[in-house]
Amino acid sequence: MGRIRDPGMAGRGEVSHGWARSRMPVLGGIVRRLKGSRPLRGVTLGFCLQVTKETSVLMAGAQELGASVAASSGNPLTTQDDVAAFLASAGADVYAWSGQTAGEFGWCARRVLGRDPDILVDDGAELSVLAHTDPGFAGLGVVGATEETTTGVSRLRALQGRGALRYPVIAVNDADTKRLFDNRHGTGQSTVDGYLRASGLLVASKRVVVAGYGMVGRGVASRCRGMGARVAVTEADPARALEACMDGFDVMPMREAARVGDVFITCTGMRDVITREHIGLMRSGSIVGNAGHFDVEVDAGYLLRESRSVRQVRPGLDECVLRGGGGKRIYLVSKGRVANLAATEGHPPEMMDLSFANQLLSILHLAGNRGRMPRGVLPVPRGLDRMVASGALSSAGIRIDVPPAPAPGARGRAGSAP
Amino acid sequence: MGRIRDPGMAGRGEVSHGWARSRMPVLGGIVRRLKGSRPLRGVTLGFCLQVTKETSVLMAGAQELGASVAASSGNPLTTQDDVAAFLASAGADVYAWSGQTAGEFGWCARRVLGRDPDILVDDGAELSVLAHTDPGFAGLGVVGATEETTTGVSRLRALQGRGALRYPVIAVNDADTKRLFDNRHGTGQSTVDGYLRASGLLVASKRVVVAGYGMVGRGVASRCRGMGARVAVTEADPARALEACMDGFDVMPMREAARVGDVFITCTGMRDVITREHIGLMRSGSIVGNAGHFDVEVDAGYLLRESRSVRQVRPGLDECVLRGGGGKRIYLVSKGRVANLAATEGHPPEMMDLSFANQLLSILHLAGNRGRMPRGVLPVPRGLDRMVASGALSSAGIRIDVPPAPAPGARGRAGSAP
Amino acid sequence: MGRIRDPGMAGRGEVSHGWARSRMPVLGGIVRRLKGSRPLRGVTLGFCLQVTKETSVLMAGAQELGASVAASSGNPLTTQDDVAAFLASAGADVYAWSGQTAGEFGWCARRVLGRDPDILVDDGAELSVLAHTDPGFAGLGVVGATEETTTGVSRLRALQGRGALRYPVIAVNDADTKRLFDNRHGTGQSTVDGYLRASGLLVASKRVVVAGYGMVGRGVASRCRGMGARVAVTEADPARALEACMDGFDVMPMREAARVGDVFITCTGMRDVITREHIGLMRSGSIVGNAGHFDVEVDAGYLLRESRSVRQVRPGLDECVLRGGGGKRIYLVSKGRVANLAATEGHPPEMMDLSFANQLLSILHLAGNRGRMPRGVLPVPRGLDRMVASGALSSAGIRIDVPPAPAPGARGRAGSAP
Amino acid sequence: MGRIRDPGMAGRGEVSHGWARSRMPVLGGIVRRLKGSRPLRGVTLGFCLQVTKETSVLMAGAQELGASVAASSGNPLTTQDDVAAFLASAGADVYAWSGQTAGEFGWCARRVLGRDPDILVDDGAELSVLAHTDPGFAGLGVVGATEETTTGVSRLRALQGRGALRYPVIAVNDADTKRLFDNRHGTGQSTVDGYLRASGLLVASKRVVVAGYGMVGRGVASRCRGMGARVAVTEADPARALEACMDGFDVMPMREAARVGDVFITCTGMRDVITREHIGLMRSGSIVGNAGHFDVEVDAGYLLRESRSVRQVRPGLDECVLRGGGGKRIYLVSKGRVANLAATEGHPPEMMDLSFANQLLSILHLAGNRGRMPRGVLPVPRGLDRMVASGALSSAGIRIDVPPAPAPGARGRAGSAP
Repeated sequence: MGRIRDPGMAGRGEVSHGWARSRMPVLGGIVRRLKGSRPLRGVTLGFCLQVTKETSVLMAGAQELGASVAASSGNPLTTQDDVAAFLASAGADVYAWSGQTAGEFGWCARRVLGRDPDILVDDGAELSVLAHTDPGFAGLGVVGATEETTTGVSRLRALQGRGALRYPVIAVNDADTKRLFDNRHGTGQSTVDGYLRASGLLVASKRVVVAGYGMVGRGVASRCRGMGARVAVTEADPARALEACMDGFDVMPMREAARVGDVFITCTGMRDVITREHIGLMRSGSIVGNAGHFDVEVDAGYLLRESRSVRQVRPGLDECVLRGGGGKRIYLVSKGRVANLAATEGHPPEMMDLSFANQLLSILHLAGNRGRMPRGVLPVPRGLDRMVASGALSSAGIRIDVPPAPAPGARGRAGSAP
Repeated sequence: MGRIRDPGMAGRGEVSHGWARSRMPVLGGIVRRLKGSRPLRGVTLGFCLQVTKETSVLMAGAQELGASVAASSGNPLTTQDDVAAFLASAGADVYAWSGQTAGEFGWCARRVLGRDPDILVDDGAELSVLAHTDPGFAGLGVVGATEETTTGVSRLRALQGRGALRYPVIAVNDADTKRLFDNRHGTGQSTVDGYLRASGLLVASKRVVVAGYGMVGRGVASRCRGMGARVAVTEADPARALEACMDGFDVMPMREAARVGDVFITCTGMRDVITREHIGLMRSGSIVGNAGHFDVEVDAGYLLRESRSVRQVRPGLDECVLRGGGGKRIYLVSKGRVANLAATEGHPPEMMDLSFANQLLSILHLAGNRGRMPRGVLPVPRGLDRMVASGALSSAGIRIDVPPAPAPGARGRAGSAP
Repeated sequence: MGRIRDPGMAGRGEVSHGWARSRMPVLGGIVRRLKGSRPLRGVTLGFCLQVTKETSVLMAGAQELGASVAASSGNPLTTQDDVAAFLASAGADVYAWSGQTAGEFGWCARRVLGRDPDILVDDGAELSVLAHTDPGFAGLGVVGATEETTTGVSRLRALQGRGALRYPVIAVNDADTKRLFDNRHGTGQSTVDGYLRASGLLVASKRVVVAGYGMVGRGVASRCRGMGARVAVTEADPARALEACMDGFDVMPMREAARVGDVFITCTGMRDVITREHIGLMRSGSIVGNAGHFDVEVDAGYLLRESRSVRQVRPGLDECVLRGGGGKRIYLVSKGRVANLAATEGHPPEMMDLSFANQLLSILHLAGNRGRMPRGVLPVPRGLDRMVASGALSSAGIRIDVPPAPAPGARGRAGSAP
Repeated sequence: MGRIRDPGMAGRGEVSHGWARSRMPVLGGIVRRLKGSRPLRGVTLGFCLQVTKETSVLMAGAQELGASVAASSGNPLTTQDDVAAFLASAGADVYAWSGQTAGEFGWCARRVLGRDPDILVDDGAELSVLAHTDPGFAGLGVVGATEETTTGVSRLRALQGRGALRYPVIAVNDADTKRLFDNRHGTGQSTVDGYLRASGLLVASKRVVVAGYGMVGRGVASRCRGMGARVAVTEADPARALEACMDGFDVMPMREAARVGDVFITCTGMRDVITREHIGLMRSGSIVGNAGHFDVEVDAGYLLRESRSVRQVRPGLDECVLRGGGGKRIYLVSKGRVANLAATEGHPPEMMDLSFANQLLSILHLAGNRGRMPRGVLPVPRGLDRMVASGALSSAGIRIDVPPAPAPGARGRAGSAP
């Protein structure tokens, strides 16, 4: 069962899996602690996550706890075929290969649902939406699901709002140990990494323009400054702009930043952040890319259309010589796609360890509370979230205090409250 | 009317007032824009805030907009008598002087309520609690109130919970432009400032132990690092501890930190953070103080009792020679009271500008919506909060973008959302 | 013998002395180790250093090692009278009080030389120049001297260049443990401290302009950034400007910086860094001061002359309302004098510990090598300098490695050398 | 003439060359300014530098100024064959290919000398040593040479010390615009980059141990901190250790650091910095590598010998499972070779722009002063060095001040000098 590109790649996949596992100690600790009792025996899990070395650690961990695993990929392009082969060799039903068509993508998801899973582990609510909209799956006995992403949580809340959601879904995306860390620290670092790999340029002294001061923007701005850049932030929200300013960053509108920037990184989650107008203002030699949402933040289409020549000068870096402007050259990172995925390897395994430890604890929670949880989108139980944070600390060899008593309920003053 | 220490100090108070006003451009801008229409004409405001140069800017601003002002002090100790004299000379009824007894403090608050104010401007809910509990004030025609502090908001919510709250109260404390800035940036800086004034020591290379990684702890830790310290954080909450760690700080329990620290700053809002046990572990020469809640975080009482000699070696710094331990010396900052208030001047005026601009806009909102707002604790209307942030930016000469269109509702991926 | 302001202040001076001593462990360690053998017995030391709590630790330490001490002040203004009284009470001949005239200053230095000192401890070469130029001191039997400052070293080299220098002088100023630390870390911190005390303003988000990127400028720029400022550097040397840029600072000419700065700090050692032209370009509300050389970097004279009103709004801060420019207000820190001395307390004691440990070791070296050292300006022997660094580390509880073997003499490559 | 791997790679090499040239504006500016007058017409240059896209910009620039170019590679392994092909296609005599034997390496250098060059451009003094030691080259009419590296300068000074050096050599290695920048900023960044590519791990929260606090160590430590690491420094020199400490880093001996580190980076230039003893103390999972000298700082040989299994888990990262210690795993970056070269691309082009602009100006200086310069190792003339710094600033769009007048020769004080 299953369909993958090449079973012969399993050996290489196992090496990758082993490396990732060695870097995911929180997830590993949970598995080690519980595998004796096999708490997921008899439970079938249906996964629709990107098939990477890190997800393989989650899937194999669930197997060690007794689960049967069926998996398709949450993204048609990003499957690591060697890892898929390893998972298949280890007994999972894997329907995933890199470079799928939309049709193949859907076919794989349907195959997973066809295995009649008890619990769905979703990225973007692909499986749940299919389970709720395809009449063929109306009879599925799903106990519950978990969801990894903001977008998936939105889609599920929409289902819930219409009264249609048939089971509990734990919004892993909203756990503190995911929310406070992955965008700021994971995307922050991997975006710098992606730009370094794509361009090989010196960061120190460069004027880097970071568009947006949400979690991603904060992480990117802080890491670029840490590498010696002079960072300017653009924002449309005045409170966030003021925060950036208090954090010591220059703040200016994009029209102004476009004239002075050397490197541009969009992190807003909005579309049309860098437009033809801004490109027109940029200096020749500017490096432009995106760490935010898909490929809609930079108007890459305009750039490619309006260039009299486009050529790849390095992997992940295209030189666009504009028609007007005396041969102005703009360098586009990863064609405007999310640079920390497209130009490097996405989140480091330590970040996925936090997410996936939450995933595994949530799966166990769903399996252990079958029939006792309400329908709807639910938070990760607070105790589980704390357990993940504690696990991360202890695997780093860090001990912390036990909570002290709260201060008396007496009055706080300006300047005195924590 | 009114009672102050010495009307002859008004000239000096006016200089302080003028200096503060020049550093509070957001509040000043609102007054300048509106004073032509005198929107607070006929409105009596009852203030119970600390009487400082910064609050004088709020009070005088309200007068310029047409209000009558009566004021007692929100703190029996901290009244700046020259500022009180200036306010009195400018027509306010001021009942405030430094070094009040508890009886005097209450007498003053009652005098303010006796002026039959339309709107109360409260710090710790002193006036509102009195208005709700003293039968003599049962008939007051209060239109609404604002509240500056966390503690005050808690007390008011308790009143609301019992169904007793008689009017709308705007929780200025919870405005983004207060909440995100004053503890982190105001207390962060002023704590470093307080320790510098108290000790005059070099920060670079010192092992500074920051207890607590809430907003205050983040600010203090970041500023100490910025001055060259090696910072260790103690925390009892694992997610916060992990954040500190990801921000590059050492994290350890206080029992361990006590052995290695040179300087200790408590920022937890809890009691008994530095206990006799920790003091017993510290090295001779350690500097110990508090930037958190009152004077309950460090067990200063133990330190003073167990010392065979205590002497002030500098203003704000006491040398405690312990009985045992071979004459171990521990240096206590401001007797364990909140160092950023006791050892220096509290929040810089720019921070109070943000708070008090919210206050003034909230007062105007209450006055303009008399009878149209529900009873209860209400947030600062979002538009007002944004207006304060925008004002702060524009007074710093900073322009920002207009909001772009949101990205399409399509799916986010691990690593891609902002 | 001696002349001070008031012997009755000795008690207070002793407390200050004790506090400083507790913060100068390197110097203290040398004294403790050697006092048994009294290596300076029979040696008379003539000091001309600023009389502060820190210098008192050096002088009293020399006494503990057996020396007789005579001292005048290296600066007519900065004598701490209580410390002078304490030193006098402890048996030193002290000729120093605050607020001396030029005549009194010279009289005091002559009295010290009149004590026929064996070794001179000089700040600015005052004693040595007098000993070489006043015929009355031609017969002094000086064994050698030490010199604390850059300027003093220059004056002594000039004497040496003319073949006039009669004895060896150890240039303590040039010791690594002074040169690499005091301007960068001592002045860096104390300048921020001075501005905080003078203005009480928030640093975060301010545009701070640091003129000059020598050691002082580096320290000031780094500490201001650490407090959240947006820092711009001005420089006239292109290599230093490039370093500032690589360190992540904005670099621009003062004419441009003048238009955008909120706070200005000159650190160049040059005159006329902020001129009337720059003041004309500044925005109203700008804070201007100096951390460099005397009071010649900012044209304070112009500012005071051209203002229609000047008033002190806080200790150390004068508001100058300019005649033209619509009442533009410029705020001057400490009248343009060196802010880290005038607005706060100068170098922290830990910095003076490094300098003065070098001083004491150099004095011991001169005393122990009487007649065996050449005339001329000499470096602190490298072993002594290392001993000071090691002492500072060990008093901070820090251990380091023993030196490893050098790498083979083989070839380095671009990018590989340390 | 010449010998390269494959002339067919010239097209790809031209793209790389073009990209590098676009990122080397200082060098490019010199060429553009002077190419009209062809000042190197009739001059033959013999190069022995690593053949990379950056050196191709120097060589092609020299050609544009009229020079004839012959080149062998300064390193037998690192030749970029496509770039060599491009240079050959552009008329240079190139004797360079990747993966040379020692014999081939020497043969190529001899071929370059055989072209009878007027000026040698050397990396490690390979050509000059050959010219001075091989009797066959005794009659060469070399006008002068330039030298890029520390090691080369040492070898040439040794020649000079023996009175053997026959011509002037300009030590480009010692120019401020090389010395102050390339190790700190170039190696600092590229080491972080190399570790990221080799491991893909999160830096934030990791305990990174940086051995050595010279220029490389400072750069690496600062960049790791900027990425969120908790950095500990090891040093054997107490003054440097104290500097690290004042810069806010933990300092400890390697024996202690070995127990607590997650990642180790040697930057000392010494051998045996991480020994079997240290490896024995490390925790399982530690990442170990080198950014210093060759491969002698980490005892990689021991690690490979003592492991019961060694396998590559990622390109550039070997997992060594030690025999004892319960299967302890140590991960070795690039087999202990210099990580910023072996695991990534070496210095960014902006750093080479500074070096090579100095090179070109020095070549022009030698050519223009033929016969008028003394034999010996000479510094880059100060004006040229400044010209490079100015060029770098102006190509970044940064203007600076003209030098102000020096302050009067009056006296400096503790705390007042710049």
